[in-house]
Amino acid sequence: MTTPGAGASGEDDLIARYFRPLATDPGAFGLIDDAALLNHTGDDLVVTTDAIVEGVHFLPDDPPDTVARKALRVNLSDLAAKGAVPAGFVLTLALREAKEQWLTPFARALGEDAAVFGCPVLGGDTVSTPGPLMISITAFGRVPPGKMVRRSGAKPGDRIAVTGTIGDAALGLRILKGQIEGLDTSSREFLIQRYRVPQPRNALAVAIREHASAAMDVSDGLAGDLAKLCTASGISASIDLMAVPHSEQARVLVTKGSSSIEAIVSGGDDYEVVCTIPENRWDSFLVAARQVNVQVTGIGKVETGAAAPRFLDAAGKSVTLKRLSYSHF
Amino acid sequence: MTTPGAGASGEDDLIARYFRPLATDPGAFGLIDDAALLNHTGDDLVVTTDAIVEGVHFLPDDPPDTVARKALRVNLSDLAAKGAVPAGFVLTLALREAKEQWLTPFARALGEDAAVFGCPVLGGDTVSTPGPLMISITAFGRVPPGKMVRRSGAKPGDRIAVTGTIGDAALGLRILKGQIEGLDTSSREFLIQRYRVPQPRNALAVAIREHASAAMDVSDGLAGDLAKLCTASGISASIDLMAVPHSEQARVLVTKGSSSIEAIVSGGDDYEVVCTIPENRWDSFLVAARQVNVQVTGIGKVETGAAAPRFLDAAGKSVTLKRLSYSHF
Repeated sequence: MTTPGAGASGEDDLIARYFRPLATDPGAFGLIDDAALLNHTGDDLVVTTDAIVEGVHFLPDDPPDTVARKALRVNLSDLAAKGAVPAGFVLTLALREAKEQWLTPFARALGEDAAVFGCPVLGGDTVSTPGPLMISITAFGRVPPGKMVRRSGAKPGDRIAVTGTIGDAALGLRILKGQIEGLDTSSREFLIQRYRVPQPRNALAVAIREHASAAMDVSDGLAGDLAKLCTASGISASIDLMAVPHSEQARVLVTKGSSSIEAIVSGGDDYEVVCTIPENRWDSFLVAARQVNVQVTGIGKVETGAAAPRFLDAAGKSVTLKRLSYSHF
Repeated sequence: MTTPGAGASGEDDLIARYFRPLATDPGAFGLIDDAALLNHTGDDLVVTTDAIVEGVHFLPDDPPDTVARKALRVNLSDLAAKGAVPAGFVLTLALREAKEQWLTPFARALGEDAAVFGCPVLGGDTVSTPGPLMISITAFGRVPPGKMVRRSGAKPGDRIAVTGTIGDAALGLRILKGQIEGLDTSSREFLIQRYRVPQPRNALAVAIREHASAAMDVSDGLAGDLAKLCTASGISASIDLMAVPHSEQARVLVTKGSSSIEAIVSGGDDYEVVCTIPENRWDSFLVAARQVNVQVTGIGKVETGAAAPRFLDAAGKSVTLKRLSYSHF
């Protein structure tokens, strides 16, 4: 981002008007420099980058405030899974036009989330595009040296836990697409909100760092993401499908036959954390999670071998999932 | 970026095939984790982000290898201006489709530049878009604590220097748009290449850090960018237009009347550095620049006051520039 002044342009004005008020961190230099600064604190820096595209990750008529929150929170969710404490972010905003009625609520919500999650805007770039709106965010988190939680540390015997509830967001998207009808208004709103505004589990980051052997963000479907964690750790897993936590609203839809537990574990956009916890840390992990008010649920165990994770039904029978996760290509 | 394996998807395959071979830095974890790591070294981290969009920052038929180099180099140029040594980058690649004949040369060139500039790929995100291709890069550089070169340190009496030559890239773009004809092939190729493949001055970063009172990357036109530096430093400047360095190829076009010195100082895409050097450091700065083989040219002086920088012609008369720089909105 660049500064307005003698050489002010439309882009500079846009930045000055909407984003400078958010750039309160000293490392952002009020967005009047070529770069931002993350100063040396003795910690390692965890870096994650995730973009959201109109029509792909959010819908053209999603409210601008929810688009802002989603853009930042999908990145915060990665930091949480790595056990990192947010340190700031930079964004690239590709816009067709600079519309005040869109930018004002977008910037306001971004600033609110930056404050709530302690993750200040440090800089960015605005570009014009004739195509769909796109927001690409790179977020930074701090961990003590060597303490980032990897995908690769799971060991046979570890318990597998997920945060929150799984499947709500994918159902919310189906509602917005008109594929699910007959729900009461409050259930509709709940599931749509779960799609539009993820609830990243940053409050749990320190507990994950202290207790988890491996962790990752669940964004493309629990089944597919867990398979990736297994591959990275060189292990397998068994999951009790009946134990996978889902909301009351999702349960109603499964009971009515509008969804299924298989669809729930392979839907995307959850932005929860799946992690593996050594048996002897399990109780302490539960206590730590309770202290920060984040729901965690044991859903299975890490097993030896390189086979794909098994998903077991109520009778303990392995269920074959047709689709593990969402893919862009 | 995510890993292929049991849950492999098209996106994972794309990353594994084209980008994993580039991810040789230990902090990239082979692109099989949610995040990358910049480990603690005692330095401050300089963070810059710049995106390039097809049809805006590069042309639809620009070769993919030049698009890759431009995407990374516009960010490297910011690091150079801040006196930072490259530490790595993450990218977001928004693609309409995953075409091998485009991705292969793109990834190869990106890897070559990452190696040449010592700026390894650490991670990223690939997304599909129905719109124009876009590459957003966030790059990191290291400086000793407190040593990032700001835009705001220029003092009256400092000399103003620019690297390389100014105006070539804007002429190259005009050639590609068919607005300039009658040039010999090698001049055409030279100017087009200056548009497509910036030459960031990272070799000069340490000299800038040691000698400059202020510096910035020249990307939107020298006149407008210098005005921003003046605003940030609370100073004014006088520039000798005749001293602004331009290539022999640009000189020919000015002589023929196909361009003008005013157009040269307000064109964009130079990706050179403008910096201010205290008088007593000038000779040392020139020696340091010569040692790393980067051309630097004195073009004027910092002056007191808050007026816009003055651009003086051969007679010492102030010239009014119609346009200072390029703007997206």
